[in-house]
Amino acid sequence: MRLATVTLPTGGTAAVRIDGPAAASGTAIPDVADVGALLDRPDWRAVAAAADGPTAPLDDLGRLIPRPGKVACVGLNYRAHIEEMGRPLPDHPTLFAKFADALIGPQDDIEIPSTAAEAVDWECELVVVVGATLRGADRAEAAAAIAGYTVMNDISMRDWQFRTREWLQGKTFGNTTPVGPVLVTADEWQPGPNISTEIDGELVQQASTGDLVFDPADLVAYLSQIVTLRPGDLIATGTPGGVGHARKPPRYLAPGMTVRTTIDGIGSLQNTCVAVDGRGRRAGTP
Amino acid sequence: MRLATVTLPTGGTAAVRIDGPAAASGTAIPDVADVGALLDRPDWRAVAAAADGPTAPLDDLGRLIPRPGKVACVGLNYRAHIEEMGRPLPDHPTLFAKFADALIGPQDDIEIPSTAAEAVDWECELVVVVGATLRGADRAEAAAAIAGYTVMNDISMRDWQFRTREWLQGKTFGNTTPVGPVLVTADEWQPGPNISTEIDGELVQQASTGDLVFDPADLVAYLSQIVTLRPGDLIATGTPGGVGHARKPPRYLAPGMTVRTTIDGIGSLQNTCVAVDGRGRRAGTP
Repeated sequence: MRLATVTLPTGGTAAVRIDGPAAASGTAIPDVADVGALLDRPDWRAVAAAADGPTAPLDDLGRLIPRPGKVACVGLNYRAHIEEMGRPLPDHPTLFAKFADALIGPQDDIEIPSTAAEAVDWECELVVVVGATLRGADRAEAAAAIAGYTVMNDISMRDWQFRTREWLQGKTFGNTTPVGPVLVTADEWQPGPNISTEIDGELVQQASTGDLVFDPADLVAYLSQIVTLRPGDLIATGTPGGVGHARKPPRYLAPGMTVRTTIDGIGSLQNTCVAVDGRGRRAGTP
Repeated sequence: MRLATVTLPTGGTAAVRIDGPAAASGTAIPDVADVGALLDRPDWRAVAAAADGPTAPLDDLGRLIPRPGKVACVGLNYRAHIEEMGRPLPDHPTLFAKFADALIGPQDDIEIPSTAAEAVDWECELVVVVGATLRGADRAEAAAAIAGYTVMNDISMRDWQFRTREWLQGKTFGNTTPVGPVLVTADEWQPGPNISTEIDGELVQQASTGDLVFDPADLVAYLSQIVTLRPGDLIATGTPGGVGHARKPPRYLAPGMTVRTTIDGIGSLQNTCVAVDGRGRRAGTP
C-alpha cells in the first residue's frame, strides 16, 4: 500500500491510499486528515485498505506526518562511505534528534535564514515510519512494528552543527527538512533500491539502501531499548557519501537551487531553497 | 503566580493556580487539564489569574506539561564548574534534545532498565518554560516570551551517553526525567537562588542559578534563531558540578535510592529509582 497526505482545494488535508506507483490520484480515507492521524488508529492497515472515499489528485502533497512524536536520526550508517573514510564500522548507531518544527512537505521550499546560509548541506535518507507502540523489541518484533518507508532530506547547517560537539543545532532549523512524498508499507518495499540526490539536475549522491550498517529492524529494536516508540515516530537511517561538506572544495546549497532526493520504489522530494531573514520571513513579507 | 497540574480523585488532571509557596491546595482552572494546555491559550495569564474553580489538594501532582513540543537541553553552562575543570567558557551553548517520552511527573519513580543500570547519573537543572510563539527574538523579546521556571532532574545513562559522540541515547530513556513540581511565572522568580541535589538526604550538588554562562533570555533568543519556539517548549539550562560520573571513584544511582532536586523559590522533585526490565516492566508485572 502507498499512503500520502494531500492538500484539498478547501485548504484542509486528507490521507489517501494510492493504488500503484504510477497513479495520478489517490482514494481519500474518510475522516482522516493525514497519514500521522491514520497511524494513530490500531486498525490503520484495514482502514486504509477498505477506504473508498472520493478521488483526490496527487499534485499538491501535504506533510505526510505533520507532528511526529519523535524524529530520531542516525549518523554514519552506510558501509561503503564509512570504509572509504578509513573508519571502523561502529558498534552502536550514533543518534540525534530533530524537532518536528524542522519538517516540511515533499514539495515545500527549504528556508535558509540569512544567519545560517554559509554551509547548507544535503543528506538524502531512507526513513523508517513506526506503525505500533513498542518497547524492548527484538528484531522480529521490531520488523513487525515498521509501518513502512519514506524519504527525508536531512538538511544540515554545517557551521552551526559543528559549533559545539552536539549536532542538534545544525540539524533542526525551522522549515528545512522535507519528508515524503509517500509512505510505502513494509510489505511492498524493502531496503536495497537506489537512493540519490540531484542538485539542479546534477547527480551528487547515489548509493544502495541495502548498504546500511544498522538496518531498519536493528534501529527500531535499538531505539526501543531506550524509549517507547509510537505510531508515526520517524527514524532517519543516515546518508551515504557525496554530501557537500566533505567535498574538496566544499559545496553548499544556496537560495534558488532545487534539490531532488529520490529512493527508487518510494518516490522523490523536490524542494527549492529560498532565503528568509532571521525571523523566518521571506523577502517582501512584513 | 505558581501553576501546577494535579491528579484528580477521578483519575483525570487539572491545571491549578497556587496562591503562595506555602499553600497546601490550589484553585482549579476550569476546563484546563494541565499547565501545557493552559499555555496553549494566548490569554493564559488572565485565565489563570481569574480562575475561581474548586480547591484541589497538592499532594498528588501530575506532569506539569505532559507533551512539550520541544525539550531542548544545554550542556556545560555553570561558570564555576567550567572554570574548575580548566576549560574556556564556550562561545555557543551546547544543545541536545530529549523526547517527551522521557519525562515523568515531580513525584514519579525513575525507571532504570536492567539494560542500562550501570551508570545512572543525576543532573539538577533550572528549566525555562516558553510562554509564546517566537522566532528570531532579541534578548528583550526572548525575556518577554518566558512563561516561567521549573526544575528538571536530567537523568543520564552515562554508558549509553558516551557510546557515540552524540549524547541523545543516554539522555532520553523512557520515564526517567522528572519535571516540576510547579511553574513559577517570570514576574515572581529570577535566576540567582540555590539549586541542589540530595541522594537519600546527602547533599551532592549545590550552586547558584545566577552562575549560568548563557542565561534564560540568551538561550531563548539563541534557540529562536534556529527554530520557532512555542508555548510549553522546555529549555533545560544545564547542571552545576557534583554529578556522579565526574567523581573519583564515580558514583551512580541504583534502584531504591531517592533523589531530591530543589531550586529555592520554585520547589523540589522527589523521585525514587525503581528497576524495570528491558521492556520497561517492573518486577511482578506481566
